[in-house]
Amino acid sequence: MLMYDILLRKRNGLALSKAEIDFFVEGAVSGRIPDYQIAAMLMAIAIRGMEGDEVRDLTLSMMASGEVADLSGIPGIKVDKHSTGGVGDKTSMMATPIAAACGIPVAKMTGKGMGHACGTMDKLDAIPGMRTAIEPAEFIENVKAVGISIVGQTGGFVPADKIFYALRDVTATIDSMPLIASSIMSKKLAAGADRILLDVKTGSGSFVGGLEHARELARVMVGIGAGAGRRTHAIITDMDKPLGTHIGNGLETIEALEVLKGRGGEELTDFAVYVAARMLELADEGPFEDCLARARAKLDDGSALEKFRAMVVRQGGDPRALDDYSLLSSPKTVKEVRAPETGYIGAIDTRRVGMAALALGAGRQTKEAPIDYAAGIVMEKTRGDFVAAGDVVATLHTNRGTEEIGVAERAFTGALRFTEEKPEEIPLVYDFIKNGTKK
Amino acid sequence: MLMYDILLRKRNGLALSKAEIDFFVEGAVSGRIPDYQIAAMLMAIAIRGMEGDEVRDLTLSMMASGEVADLSGIPGIKVDKHSTGGVGDKTSMMATPIAAACGIPVAKMTGKGMGHACGTMDKLDAIPGMRTAIEPAEFIENVKAVGISIVGQTGGFVPADKIFYALRDVTATIDSMPLIASSIMSKKLAAGADRILLDVKTGSGSFVGGLEHARELARVMVGIGAGAGRRTHAIITDMDKPLGTHIGNGLETIEALEVLKGRGGEELTDFAVYVAARMLELADEGPFEDCLARARAKLDDGSALEKFRAMVVRQGGDPRALDDYSLLSSPKTVKEVRAPETGYIGAIDTRRVGMAALALGAGRQTKEAPIDYAAGIVMEKTRGDFVAAGDVVATLHTNRGTEEIGVAERAFTGALRFTEEKPEEIPLVYDFIKNGTKK
Repeated sequence: MLMYDILLRKRNGLALSKAEIDFFVEGAVSGRIPDYQIAAMLMAIAIRGMEGDEVRDLTLSMMASGEVADLSGIPGIKVDKHSTGGVGDKTSMMATPIAAACGIPVAKMTGKGMGHACGTMDKLDAIPGMRTAIEPAEFIENVKAVGISIVGQTGGFVPADKIFYALRDVTATIDSMPLIASSIMSKKLAAGADRILLDVKTGSGSFVGGLEHARELARVMVGIGAGAGRRTHAIITDMDKPLGTHIGNGLETIEALEVLKGRGGEELTDFAVYVAARMLELADEGPFEDCLARARAKLDDGSALEKFRAMVVRQGGDPRALDDYSLLSSPKTVKEVRAPETGYIGAIDTRRVGMAALALGAGRQTKEAPIDYAAGIVMEKTRGDFVAAGDVVATLHTNRGTEEIGVAERAFTGALRFTEEKPEEIPLVYDFIKNGTKK
Repeated sequence: MLMYDILLRKRNGLALSKAEIDFFVEGAVSGRIPDYQIAAMLMAIAIRGMEGDEVRDLTLSMMASGEVADLSGIPGIKVDKHSTGGVGDKTSMMATPIAAACGIPVAKMTGKGMGHACGTMDKLDAIPGMRTAIEPAEFIENVKAVGISIVGQTGGFVPADKIFYALRDVTATIDSMPLIASSIMSKKLAAGADRILLDVKTGSGSFVGGLEHARELARVMVGIGAGAGRRTHAIITDMDKPLGTHIGNGLETIEALEVLKGRGGEELTDFAVYVAARMLELADEGPFEDCLARARAKLDDGSALEKFRAMVVRQGGDPRALDDYSLLSSPKTVKEVRAPETGYIGAIDTRRVGMAALALGAGRQTKEAPIDYAAGIVMEKTRGDFVAAGDVVATLHTNRGTEEIGVAERAFTGALRFTEEKPEEIPLVYDFIKNGTKK
């Protein structure tokens, strides 16, 4: 088999066989296929697309390129939950303890922040002492012991994705449907769960784009899951405003804890319960309405918070941080941002809000750079709220200097569009997709 | 400007601006843009195509990436003639001396053989002592002194093409219309002639493919020439059989000399006169029919042969080789190939015939490998001829051993398809294209 012939086929818009895809992925990982052929292939895929079978084969081949978790030692149906990422998205930290409190085992691997979004792993790392770099055996023991463990997906998983992603990043092939879908799903499949719940974010703060694109991505990924024998459901949710009010690693952990304590905002609380219920539904725990009621009950009676606490303690985290939030975020500076004009917040360029948080120190400048867990933004007003000029719309939390604060403030206020009319309400959950196009 | 953005535009099928194309070509040549981005760009161009303005801009940018010949010191209209390449194509060696004998200056830069075809430069190099690596000043003096000089296009011309070609060769983007057209035309424009005659070969022995593809390539290249202010005409000619009877460097020189001596095959002789006349027409030497008559006269009276001889002498070649053909090709072995069956030669896989000649030593195994000028094939029969089983259809000329001869013989006989019916005649010249699609 020759890489040349495979490139020619994809260039001409033909579907690749499983053997051709395996040859490509294995060659890329072994170094036998040089960068320029991989780059040409990624461009051909980005333009020509891939059929359902091809995306599934690509995903499985990528998954098999490295370590694959074996969760069979944990009794019960393991449901993973994954978000395509957005600003202020702390859903996993709320929904998984609720699901665990309902009795389903949660063995979740998660990632670092990327681009304008913070990652679950970094948010947990904001808890002093918390360990997320945990070996498989301990991970499994944790789940058996306390019903929930969230750890970082270590370097040995899906090396093909690292190679492809680095080249996609410099060849304008990041936002290719089959490449996004295979990247996400190969990591999810390698993480070993039996079933997968995907939260596909759409809107200005998402990585996915508009609603139709999000629906299509969800369908493709649900199809990959089905093709790989792992039942996968997807929800399509809004990212045209930050999720909740807190943005930044320590601040998002605080907001998640407030929800778990029953003191969170209504919309965010409802969403956490909804996602947990979708996880229960996937784990064959009965009709969705029942799942919803059970999830709500386990949040209300405090058992979800206790699951979270048990996980923190088990993974070496300081449980005092769950009540003394100064242990999660004590920035040198908290600066108020005031509305430059009067009107409704009609729209938010949510990605710019995420960039403002990065400027305050909430993200990494380079791949291995340290994160300032204290840094971030607390929104006092959001999309749909009426503000008068001079009202406080947000507070900026940072250990950085006046220059970075200025950058963040301009980015934040520049992200807000004021309107005379109250904007139409946007649902938080747009759609629920299961069994791909087959249903 | 960012290469990322340029890649994204072409990936999305948008036309690139001149500034974007210049940025890409200059970055590729300077090494600022890495291989993998160039490869991704070539793939995007191969799939998305380019508009007329883009191809012209790409061609001009490639031309400007290196040395550009200045032929202004030579009085008169300089007409270049270029073939896209084929098996047995020795046209330049016949048509250019005829044109020179008619009084138009011939200052031609030419290339080495590539793939299954021999190059004009290698054919001239078959003449003992002949120098084709000549500096510009001497080149121009040669044309002024004897009216004709053919030299190799040296390393300093169009470095962008060398970079692109090497990557196209390994990314399955060789046969992309804009990439072929810009590769050919950038070299032709850099060679400095005022006007350009293109011979676009079509059929099984060509690099171009079918007739419609050849027409389209011709139109694109004629358009590039017009856009660059160099009047360009194109003829579309047949390569569904080898041109003439001799294949291989020394052997093709012999056949060209036979034509110049008035002893060549009728079809080949007519074609040489036709091409010379098209060159005269391009040089404003009057109506085509008149040009045809003048070209014929200069062939018939021996002055074309004398032009060829003058060039050979001027460039250090041994003029005895023009009469003593053993100086051009004296192979150790000449082996007859006999027809395996009785019938008409209905079709020839001409590329395979070229590959057979390569197996005998007529081409290079690697870029810098020496060529065996004596090696090649003389066809005794060709497309449309009737042969009885056991008749000699060709002789193989080689200094190689029995194994290579066996390979060549199998390739040659395998290239012939025998039919009961005489195949329909194919015209040698399919079409003549000028002023692109504007006319």
